[in-house]
Amino acid sequence: MLGARGRMGIEVCRAVDQAGDLDLVAMVDQGDWLFNASDAAAQVVVDFTTPDVVMDNLQWCIDQGINVVVGTSGFTDARLEQVKGWLAAKPEVGVVIAPNFGIGAVLMMEFAERAARYFDSVEIIEQHHPKKVDAPSGTALHTARLIEQARKAAGKPAMPDATTDEMPGARGTEVGGVRIHSVRAAGLVAHQEILFGATGETLTIRHDSFDRASFMPGVLLAIREVVKRPGLTLGLAPLL
Amino acid sequence: MLGARGRMGIEVCRAVDQAGDLDLVAMVDQGDWLFNASDAAAQVVVDFTTPDVVMDNLQWCIDQGINVVVGTSGFTDARLEQVKGWLAAKPEVGVVIAPNFGIGAVLMMEFAERAARYFDSVEIIEQHHPKKVDAPSGTALHTARLIEQARKAAGKPAMPDATTDEMPGARGTEVGGVRIHSVRAAGLVAHQEILFGATGETLTIRHDSFDRASFMPGVLLAIREVVKRPGLTLGLAPLL
Amino acid sequence: MLGARGRMGIEVCRAVDQAGDLDLVAMVDQGDWLFNASDAAAQVVVDFTTPDVVMDNLQWCIDQGINVVVGTSGFTDARLEQVKGWLAAKPEVGVVIAPNFGIGAVLMMEFAERAARYFDSVEIIEQHHPKKVDAPSGTALHTARLIEQARKAAGKPAMPDATTDEMPGARGTEVGGVRIHSVRAAGLVAHQEILFGATGETLTIRHDSFDRASFMPGVLLAIREVVKRPGLTLGLAPLL
Amino acid sequence: MLGARGRMGIEVCRAVDQAGDLDLVAMVDQGDWLFNASDAAAQVVVDFTTPDVVMDNLQWCIDQGINVVVGTSGFTDARLEQVKGWLAAKPEVGVVIAPNFGIGAVLMMEFAERAARYFDSVEIIEQHHPKKVDAPSGTALHTARLIEQARKAAGKPAMPDATTDEMPGARGTEVGGVRIHSVRAAGLVAHQEILFGATGETLTIRHDSFDRASFMPGVLLAIREVVKRPGLTLGLAPLL
Repeated sequence: MLGARGRMGIEVCRAVDQAGDLDLVAMVDQGDWLFNASDAAAQVVVDFTTPDVVMDNLQWCIDQGINVVVGTSGFTDARLEQVKGWLAAKPEVGVVIAPNFGIGAVLMMEFAERAARYFDSVEIIEQHHPKKVDAPSGTALHTARLIEQARKAAGKPAMPDATTDEMPGARGTEVGGVRIHSVRAAGLVAHQEILFGATGETLTIRHDSFDRASFMPGVLLAIREVVKRPGLTLGLAPLL
Repeated sequence: MLGARGRMGIEVCRAVDQAGDLDLVAMVDQGDWLFNASDAAAQVVVDFTTPDVVMDNLQWCIDQGINVVVGTSGFTDARLEQVKGWLAAKPEVGVVIAPNFGIGAVLMMEFAERAARYFDSVEIIEQHHPKKVDAPSGTALHTARLIEQARKAAGKPAMPDATTDEMPGARGTEVGGVRIHSVRAAGLVAHQEILFGATGETLTIRHDSFDRASFMPGVLLAIREVVKRPGLTLGLAPLL
Repeated sequence: MLGARGRMGIEVCRAVDQAGDLDLVAMVDQGDWLFNASDAAAQVVVDFTTPDVVMDNLQWCIDQGINVVVGTSGFTDARLEQVKGWLAAKPEVGVVIAPNFGIGAVLMMEFAERAARYFDSVEIIEQHHPKKVDAPSGTALHTARLIEQARKAAGKPAMPDATTDEMPGARGTEVGGVRIHSVRAAGLVAHQEILFGATGETLTIRHDSFDRASFMPGVLLAIREVVKRPGLTLGLAPLL
Repeated sequence: MLGARGRMGIEVCRAVDQAGDLDLVAMVDQGDWLFNASDAAAQVVVDFTTPDVVMDNLQWCIDQGINVVVGTSGFTDARLEQVKGWLAAKPEVGVVIAPNFGIGAVLMMEFAERAARYFDSVEIIEQHHPKKVDAPSGTALHTARLIEQARKAAGKPAMPDATTDEMPGARGTEVGGVRIHSVRAAGLVAHQEILFGATGETLTIRHDSFDRASFMPGVLLAIREVVKRPGLTLGLAPLL
């Protein structure tokens, strides 16, 4: 485990420790040696660190032939290309990079992509605690792009919207033609609602995450699957 | 009834007609004479017309000593002062002007005002059909101002919000310190949700209006009450 | 169209009439001759009649070699076997029998089936207008059975529930191990919510239907598809 | 604090400790002496114990002239009469007994009572974690009784409900003419939704409690107020 003393790291260590079929062989954080992982003969490294160190960690693991599950954020297209380059030289190594390990969140995104072609309108409302610094959330951005692609593939026209008199920001921000609204309030944790509308009906898909523990089944699934999947896997969806 | 052939006018005529204690004595629309109303000895005129004719209608009714219930929009402070001026000369006449005749909507606003002082955060999400031209809705703007006043009176500080990295519009528009998010989608009619948050809990008040018929109990209530209330009454709340 | 003067029949006639690629050739209701349909050389018959006449209608259409789309309710396993028997003698004829033609409702059921294996708990809350005579709704029953089968196939254990002190009915009714709660209230039309829960997270799928018009895209889809699908097709899902 | 080692007790001790204007003078649990409280000159005792000991605790506190805030459940009418009897002999002592200390929950109940007379239909859906043993929850029962009284006072007739074909329990349990539906699922904490319906509109009031910490502002409010309110106060509502 890299980032073992972070909030997610502590949860992952606990979850791996409790899983009968997995062994926690090394806990590494800032100031520790990465070689602790290879010395312990780790088969899989889990990385919940920070965007500034995650690329070095990944390069080192791939070099050592260790599979990696990454929950750290900040993966641009350029970074993903870089990872693919490293993996080309080590085709037997598996890497899973996921923006969200909640199985509910992954299903929500899958359903959104599936429903996108059948409805005239779709908007995203994401709701988070007020300490969050970015708006919209990464999950909302990812969902909007999936919907954009699905609508484009189905040849859906732009959504109906007669708004001519808008106060700045009232209609949210637009990503790939999809409006996203970011709510921030005390008491909230992490929630997202996707509203689909057609004549006379709406379909709503909502995910509520109350606790970091909800990500653990997804992390464990990724650990178990990464050893069977050489190359780069993006998101948890292909593992479900 | 003024505006008797409009969509709301038709509903109001039907509702009055079905009410055992009320008589529909005159239906007036564009091209008809207002004197039809006075000739029929109307005690109350209901006006669902348009902003460009409503002031003339009001002046005429007050002059004739007829009570008025107004659902037409576009009442600025200047217009309200004008109405008060006319009423000063006819103190026995009652006028009710309301932005929303849905009893559920009126209760929603009352509850929002009441809850505002007990929660750290509050945001408004209003959802309407995609033919609506203004965002936010008039009801959302009115709700935000009620909340602003209640928080100010209770000495509440600004809401917590750590957002530093916002895509334009993601956090909605701000009215009196309250964020409003306007969703527009096919299948929707008229909906509003007010989310209150404090440590560990949220309180949500939601109003869904599916049908113009939902405004009729409020219109009938105003008709019955306006004859007992000389002077200007704003909104349905004082009648409940 | 059989049942052309019923509430659904009127909507279907209007929708077919407005569809550029379809012709409405015969409108049949109680007291009319079925031969009107064959005389008009109908390629597809749509049946929104009643459980007591639908079987006769179906037998006649299949005999005549006319494809059928059925929205009438009351299809037991025995009835379905009977239809299969008739179709065995006319293998070129297509029959689509669907409990719900709302595309949103069909997607809701598909998603429920897909999500069922990933969550410890799932309950159904269906909400309808107070004139509805049956509780739970047919859609809720169908959803519960899909979830039951998916959980069984995935080897999921019974849901956690420590309730020992229950007032009669508080926990709803149970169908295939899935609890269903039926809400009836003025103002409602037809709504269903499926709540999935696992440690620290919930996933909610909700369908709101405000208008019979929402079923028309599904009926038109079935009309267009039934001519390409000989034999019996159950539900709209295979056509999506 | 009585019940100081229970889950609520631990939270209350922490909250009192952090409040600048309150002192935590004694922590008492099973096996400890109540006299610890009087020896420490406690002005207010907070009781989160169990139904089998709370009456003895109350009698002792009232005898000693110590004000009491009670969050323990199980107060029947007979028990409340008993408490009033003890207080008659000590008119200067204040006792607050509340079924729910969440300010959001208290407002929810107040709003429910207020809205009850304006709608034809109202149903309660409460949702809790699957370790809860009773269904419905105490808060739902209390809400139903408030609604029943408000409807009776307003002369509202029975709610419309055409159900003739009900699977056992589908329509929930009935308390004072109000249907309550109890949902239990992993991932949930404590939630309640009250749905009001009239022709063409619904009003929904929903409270979500994610954390025991949400009850602390209500407990602190009760501690500060009980010293100013001799006699018995039921619920938090009179203190808001």
